[in-house]
Amino acid sequence: MALGSSITVLAVTGIGEVRAGDDLAAMIAEHATLEPGDVVVVTQKIVSKAEGRMVRIDPDDPAAKQALAETESVRILRRRGALVVTETRHGFVCANSGVDLSNVADGWAALLPVDPDRSARRLRDGLRARTGVEVAVIVSDTFGRAWRRGVTDVAIGCAGIRAIVDLRGTEDALGRELVATEVCVVDEVASAAELVMGKSAGVPVAIVRGVDARWLGKGAVLSDVVRPYDEDLFR
Amino acid sequence: MALGSSITVLAVTGIGEVRAGDDLAAMIAEHATLEPGDVVVVTQKIVSKAEGRMVRIDPDDPAAKQALAETESVRILRRRGALVVTETRHGFVCANSGVDLSNVADGWAALLPVDPDRSARRLRDGLRARTGVEVAVIVSDTFGRAWRRGVTDVAIGCAGIRAIVDLRGTEDALGRELVATEVCVVDEVASAAELVMGKSAGVPVAIVRGVDARWLGKGAVLSDVVRPYDEDLFR
Repeated sequence: MALGSSITVLAVTGIGEVRAGDDLAAMIAEHATLEPGDVVVVTQKIVSKAEGRMVRIDPDDPAAKQALAETESVRILRRRGALVVTETRHGFVCANSGVDLSNVADGWAALLPVDPDRSARRLRDGLRARTGVEVAVIVSDTFGRAWRRGVTDVAIGCAGIRAIVDLRGTEDALGRELVATEVCVVDEVASAAELVMGKSAGVPVAIVRGVDARWLGKGAVLSDVVRPYDEDLFR
Repeated sequence: MALGSSITVLAVTGIGEVRAGDDLAAMIAEHATLEPGDVVVVTQKIVSKAEGRMVRIDPDDPAAKQALAETESVRILRRRGALVVTETRHGFVCANSGVDLSNVADGWAALLPVDPDRSARRLRDGLRARTGVEVAVIVSDTFGRAWRRGVTDVAIGCAGIRAIVDLRGTEDALGRELVATEVCVVDEVASAAELVMGKSAGVPVAIVRGVDARWLGKGAVLSDVVRPYDEDLFR
């Protein structure tokens, strides 16, 4: 079999329930043996829990989630039934401002981290301090898409990995110039991680091992991936 | 290390240049040892080439690509400079109707396959005939997104794998009901494959090994993933 590069995606199990103030880096370091260049993907949910981004919500009020989503938004783009598509303070366009009631205790809602890139940097620093290993970190969340049904996981924060790898100007296989191939590798890594996380399996961390070492370095989602309002053709 | 499930993504090298009429199944079978349950991801480019979906284009006319993109569309959604965002006959919303000049000979353009799900089914049947192994097939392409910079690979056709896995009604880890978690697993698998394909490395095939066996089965992108116009909030 003529094989080139390969990537392995590993689910990290045993993390258990995360509570406000928990040390995520310590919990991950306890359950995973990290290697240099690994990308550690953690779901927004456990980051929000560890950071105490949980708020009370009336479980009997069907409009409570939408009202909360609106307070978390800077712009409401569309409404349809119980769904509200908003632009969050970060600039993410997503359903319900990312407010999420699944996998949280009854009567509580998880909000997005205030600064998911910072969350990723802190976790990366914590993992380095505990393990001595340089890894990259991606905070992932599950977003819908304008033109396609179904949700996929994307990166809402990252550290130690370039968010978008610019292949403009590199030659294609026929020696011609590529004109616009800026690949959002952090979103692709987040999607790859989701394949082993599952939604009901309660696996909030995965390791993506073997990504191109040239992608590692300084990167951020908010500044590099979020499309600014004035560049947007569809908002 | 407490590890749960894992997935491996393998680049298949040595395929070489693909020409109209080439037997893709034979070319892949020659260079890859397939296992039952593998998802074989092939780029749209080599499928289009094998299917003869190449057309002449004037390499000296900067407007030629856009004109061709318009003839391949049913609806033009936005224009900005040389970019035209269109809805293709399949219902895909993408840049330039998927018309692509990279990695094709000078003076030619690659169009999308007429029916990418059928392309995937044919390739799956061909691989079964040649290897005796039941695999799933995804035809991938590189699309932009409305709200996020950078491109990612998505599925434009599939066979032997459900496009969207509906986890509605399954319980989350705390025993509560999830309400809307229809995951577009074929897009996530396409993104995972892209991580090893690279854009300039000329690797048009990857194998994603280890996906949840419950996802395997009948699926299609056009009927399941393409969001119909009347369901769309942003077109």
